[in-house]
Amino acid sequence: MSFDRLIEKIVKTQNPTVVGLDPKLDYVPEFIKEKKFEKYGKTLEGAAKAILTFNKKIIDEIYDIVPAIKPQAAYYEMYGWQGVKTLYKTIEYAQSKGMYVITDGKRNDIGATMEAYATAHLGVTDVDGEMISAFGADALTVNGYLGTDGISPLLEQCRNNDKGIFVLVKTSNKSSGELQDKYIGIKTVYNVMGDMCESWGAEAMGKYGYSSVGAVVGATYPEQLAEMRKALPHTFFLVPGYGAQGGGAEGVAKGFDANGLGAIVNSSRAVMCAYKKEGCDEQDFAKAARREVIRMKEDIISYLPKIALE
Amino acid sequence: MSFDRLIEKIVKTQNPTVVGLDPKLDYVPEFIKEKKFEKYGKTLEGAAKAILTFNKKIIDEIYDIVPAIKPQAAYYEMYGWQGVKTLYKTIEYAQSKGMYVITDGKRNDIGATMEAYATAHLGVTDVDGEMISAFGADALTVNGYLGTDGISPLLEQCRNNDKGIFVLVKTSNKSSGELQDKYIGIKTVYNVMGDMCESWGAEAMGKYGYSSVGAVVGATYPEQLAEMRKALPHTFFLVPGYGAQGGGAEGVAKGFDANGLGAIVNSSRAVMCAYKKEGCDEQDFAKAARREVIRMKEDIISYLPKIALE
Repeated sequence: MSFDRLIEKIVKTQNPTVVGLDPKLDYVPEFIKEKKFEKYGKTLEGAAKAILTFNKKIIDEIYDIVPAIKPQAAYYEMYGWQGVKTLYKTIEYAQSKGMYVITDGKRNDIGATMEAYATAHLGVTDVDGEMISAFGADALTVNGYLGTDGISPLLEQCRNNDKGIFVLVKTSNKSSGELQDKYIGIKTVYNVMGDMCESWGAEAMGKYGYSSVGAVVGATYPEQLAEMRKALPHTFFLVPGYGAQGGGAEGVAKGFDANGLGAIVNSSRAVMCAYKKEGCDEQDFAKAARREVIRMKEDIISYLPKIALE
Repeated sequence: MSFDRLIEKIVKTQNPTVVGLDPKLDYVPEFIKEKKFEKYGKTLEGAAKAILTFNKKIIDEIYDIVPAIKPQAAYYEMYGWQGVKTLYKTIEYAQSKGMYVITDGKRNDIGATMEAYATAHLGVTDVDGEMISAFGADALTVNGYLGTDGISPLLEQCRNNDKGIFVLVKTSNKSSGELQDKYIGIKTVYNVMGDMCESWGAEAMGKYGYSSVGAVVGATYPEQLAEMRKALPHTFFLVPGYGAQGGGAEGVAKGFDANGLGAIVNSSRAVMCAYKKEGCDEQDFAKAARREVIRMKEDIISYLPKIALE
């Protein structure tokens, strides 16, 4: 139920991080692209196949030390339905290796349509009696601007299919405050959204004190992260913005509880492009990703208490 | 530039409505499904092919009298990447018939990722120098919760590729007020979001007084629709919630300006399922859709001044 499976994987790996797979074609080493372009041409299919190979090789190198991946839907949609097929195959592959998959889609809509998104990404689709998983992630990021109607259909999937959602609360970008920091009475918009997460989650609690309804709170705003950790005791955090966007390990540590749990920190580009930063042979890209994953984990856990189920 | 192309199509057809293509498999007549299931099995592919045939036949019957379609991404994602391929093919087909296509995806993310969504849905993707259209809609619905960073990449596509966006301002669902109606000082959250639309649009104005940045304002809240029409003179409205959700023609008329322009009203289920409501032979579903489109148009324009560019 809820994020229990994710929490158990975090404890097992002693690693509260998730690798974001946001694969621009630029990130993919030449030797992979050349091979795929030769076979499929410089087409969306060629690009999508190159990205799938890139993803799989990274997963092969990290699945034993990282609990989860977070593919970002936008980078797959950019390569058309062929790219979206690669998203599907990436999710399937990561799960076959035992990883937890958070699809970062920030989906949102009103009731009936949100039900379709919930089915697409977390549920099973009814094709005239045949129940088929369309994308089958373990969790999905969503945007709560539309209120409860837009969240309820997801809660059903969370309860019935042991899934989770992360609602955008305080995002990591510079202009996030234009709306999110505005005051509604004595609370900010992100406070109000955070409170809604706690109340949506109340009916889908897990055994480790966290519900199925998590929140996205950016690493770039450590003060708000600390404030939110205190205000939202049952809400698990997905923390983007570490590394490339400027969030440091000391800051992200504020999103964790006394057991070193309660949050998972994302890194995308720094892992995918570790081989570029290292300047190593591009053939070695997946091993460079592994090295960056280990560096990031060590960096973050150095600021945390021992991660334990307590 | 901006919504000029859409406005011209509305004037030409004298029809300020858009047909939402949100095709659940349940909406597709049996004779289409049977044929596709026979060929492809009860699979996501079979479902996706059935939906594509359904969409094309509806488009064939309405393209001469309706300016635009609005496919809702959720209902395609529900059928996996195969469904997303049907979304692509539907967009391509509608455009080949001269229709304007609004992809209803309510996408949102921070800068770099929003750029990927903008490229995916409105732009062209660079595959090692080959510039390829991934989905190629004319406009996209988006969620502005993340602020300006999440909108800027779209404005670039609007300016460079003659596209438009519709930002969620006041949605048509029951719980939309939980956040959207809350007061920030003397303005509601939806007022603040509306003001942001006007300011984002200022740098992408079209020749008929409307910018590239439109707003989604639900038909189910006619008072807010009237208030918004007055407050946001350069913002074109996409109005969902007519018909099935309870919004009437008199109410939606409040979203229009003195030239009968400034808004486009969506209807989805009532058109797609007109044959069920009529109780006609299911072979006749597309003609029933056409009849409903005409009924809806007559209903709405009866409350409007003559639609004219002036």
